[in-house]
Amino acid sequence: MTADLAALRADLDGIALAGDAATLKLKSRDFFWFSPILKPMLDDKRADLVVLPKSKDEVMRIAAACARRRVPLTVRGGGTGNYGQAVPLAGGVVIDMGGLDRTVAVTPGAGRFEAGARLLDIDKSLRDMAAGGPRWELRFHPSTRKQATIGGFIAGGAAGCGSCTWGQIADPGAVIAAEVVTVEEEPRAIELHGRDVLKVLHAYGVNGVITEVAVPLAPWQPWAERVLAFPSLAAATRFGWALTAAEGIAKKEVGVFDAAIPPLLKRLAPLVPAGKAMAIVMVAEAQRDALADLVADHGGEIVYARSAAEAEDAAFEGKGAMPPLYEYTWNHTTLHALKVEPAVTFLQIRLPEGGEVDLAERIEKAFAGELLLHLEFQRRFGRVFVSSLPLLRYRSRARLDEVVQAVEAMGGSVSDPHTYVLDDAGWKRTDAPQAEFKSLADPLGLMNPGKLRAWPPAA
Amino acid sequence: MTADLAALRADLDGIALAGDAATLKLKSRDFFWFSPILKPMLDDKRADLVVLPKSKDEVMRIAAACARRRVPLTVRGGGTGNYGQAVPLAGGVVIDMGGLDRTVAVTPGAGRFEAGARLLDIDKSLRDMAAGGPRWELRFHPSTRKQATIGGFIAGGAAGCGSCTWGQIADPGAVIAAEVVTVEEEPRAIELHGRDVLKVLHAYGVNGVITEVAVPLAPWQPWAERVLAFPSLAAATRFGWALTAAEGIAKKEVGVFDAAIPPLLKRLAPLVPAGKAMAIVMVAEAQRDALADLVADHGGEIVYARSAAEAEDAAFEGKGAMPPLYEYTWNHTTLHALKVEPAVTFLQIRLPEGGEVDLAERIEKAFAGELLLHLEFQRRFGRVFVSSLPLLRYRSRARLDEVVQAVEAMGGSVSDPHTYVLDDAGWKRTDAPQAEFKSLADPLGLMNPGKLRAWPPAA
Repeated sequence: MTADLAALRADLDGIALAGDAATLKLKSRDFFWFSPILKPMLDDKRADLVVLPKSKDEVMRIAAACARRRVPLTVRGGGTGNYGQAVPLAGGVVIDMGGLDRTVAVTPGAGRFEAGARLLDIDKSLRDMAAGGPRWELRFHPSTRKQATIGGFIAGGAAGCGSCTWGQIADPGAVIAAEVVTVEEEPRAIELHGRDVLKVLHAYGVNGVITEVAVPLAPWQPWAERVLAFPSLAAATRFGWALTAAEGIAKKEVGVFDAAIPPLLKRLAPLVPAGKAMAIVMVAEAQRDALADLVADHGGEIVYARSAAEAEDAAFEGKGAMPPLYEYTWNHTTLHALKVEPAVTFLQIRLPEGGEVDLAERIEKAFAGELLLHLEFQRRFGRVFVSSLPLLRYRSRARLDEVVQAVEAMGGSVSDPHTYVLDDAGWKRTDAPQAEFKSLADPLGLMNPGKLRAWPPAA
Repeated sequence: MTADLAALRADLDGIALAGDAATLKLKSRDFFWFSPILKPMLDDKRADLVVLPKSKDEVMRIAAACARRRVPLTVRGGGTGNYGQAVPLAGGVVIDMGGLDRTVAVTPGAGRFEAGARLLDIDKSLRDMAAGGPRWELRFHPSTRKQATIGGFIAGGAAGCGSCTWGQIADPGAVIAAEVVTVEEEPRAIELHGRDVLKVLHAYGVNGVITEVAVPLAPWQPWAERVLAFPSLAAATRFGWALTAAEGIAKKEVGVFDAAIPPLLKRLAPLVPAGKAMAIVMVAEAQRDALADLVADHGGEIVYARSAAEAEDAAFEGKGAMPPLYEYTWNHTTLHALKVEPAVTFLQIRLPEGGEVDLAERIEKAFAGELLLHLEFQRRFGRVFVSSLPLLRYRSRARLDEVVQAVEAMGGSVSDPHTYVLDDAGWKRTDAPQAEFKSLADPLGLMNPGKLRAWPPAA
């Protein structure tokens, strides 16, 4: 490897490189350490070289060099994944895509961006284009809006704030196109349109280097923030369902949390009365009255309110003591809880249609103090779609498996987040021909070897 | 009445009035004549005086004068209703609200307008404010966008283009506020907020004069138009459902039509191959590929396509030979068909959740050539919601009743459009205390007497 690396460095003359231990460590990690199971497996994985391209041409030179030298390569965006997406299992090169961060084009209702553009920066630039008037924004972003790149979100994300209106990124219409560079001695740039984008969607970056992404843009609305308290998890869940079902109330986030969770979220803890379930919502400013009516209907109270302008100052400029509330939703909940309780981890559960409240109540009862439900409300497939990223007070793998089995027996669908192997990622995978596309885009099998159980697959 | 009228004219000195026979006829009618049952009942109803106020102060003077003189008054917007909303059953004064057409305020995501502002004019002015960039627009409009006023839509409308995304105007969050002037010797202006707006919503203007309306605004998207042809009504219905269920495809209109309907729509007839069911859709420009995929999935073909810019030129400037396609949807379908077949009328049917395709197929079979289904797809209550404004080849009231009963026996919910009596308007009514509000806003019972079966109700 040492000789190969020296040759590779020479091949990449003129492209920014880093080989110091601190950078190699930093750029070989993502948020896999949320999982006590993944942590020991991935903690010591290291790239041998970090490459920081600034253009597609540089990406193609890197891909060509890795192919020629048969050096493994792993593509990295913001490093915000939880399943080791950015961890180079076999060492070699990590490509940090952050330098490809340009806006390629913005047309009414659509934008094309280089893969390394960060989601928050995209929304900021769309705001700056608008001169104070109505504007475009990304339809959705994970809670890691500030760090996550659009390429990384396409490669390893699924849903986020905005999914309560727009569904998920694998759903029809959510991505317009992606450009992918193949890893070959003579790399090609392939443009995938419409459904073909599914070939690289949620493929963890193992079948080509995504260099550009085109997405429909949502028309922005002034998103006000609220923290709400409810007498019970069931009441909060009914509220979340009703708000998500209310087409007339424009919204960007609907999250509901077990009463045991707010105490684990330092800044929110003082806001929520003890024993109360919590909801975090973002609704259009103009709909504050309709929201207030709905909160009251479900016995809730508004314990924190921030205007859209203040919320955006917090998100875009870091103003104020309270971070943007979306940084307490999705898997940021786990991040905050880990700071208070290092033994916490999380699961991923999909709740059955029509049985959401019932299952939430049964889980609450069966696993009080151990599995703390955190529900994220989405719209998918023409209906309200409820999934959970519950906190789990971790005891052992055996107990985790026991909890998973019990939840599945109760009617929940569990997707295991405690694996870095793509084949085991469960229902999140699309049914697109990702493997066939890998044969074409990574014929030498150099893209993060080990991420797939076996590659090439046995005949 | 003659003496009263002379006194009333004197009271209204300085306000524009009209008493000529042509104006009295014109302003005493709406589109009730779609119904062969309503036509003979309402054809000869006439106001004695038409009043054309330009301001809320003038409205208050008119209300005061009518109260003092005990003269009935009927409020009129664009006159686009189908149930005689604007027909003065007991004569007296018709107030044409068209002169109150100012924009009161536009803030991010919300607008407040005088009641007589026409929906198309509102959208044009919102476009003009935006200088070519992203902009706001009304969430929905009936097919009569050009003629209908926002006050009239609140008072007598229900749904329209945009309902496939935003639901209906009676749904939570759809109307922010309404200002209502009472009919008393000393009229008051009452501001209704949030749910209280339901008191005057779909009340046909019998419980106060709506003078201003505040609504959330939708962020505009560039709406491209398509006419689609499908091998069968079932295929078109499945397509319509799938498109409406696809959160990832931004859309403004999804209408589906029996194969027997396009021949009745002069400009569309040449586009749709004989025997093919039709769909008319408006989707965001950026989603043309996702739409094309979905059309192909259902065996359909695109037989007419127009860009968003061209579609808007047709709607806003009347450019091109083809009217805006939304003028073939909702009850405009009936209007066009009546020009070709004078004996056509319509019904209103709500299809059962999950049984839409099945009921459509059974109705098609049972009433081939007589009841021609025209489905409008909406999102309501967290789900896809399908209603129909089918064309009916009218034979007699008895046969109409027979068809209605049969459709109800098959699982459809029918709302009778062939009545001008508000009490009989069926499921479209809200459950708000409209009658109580009438006691307060129209204590003398002067607002279009006859519109309610009995007023004041027997104790």
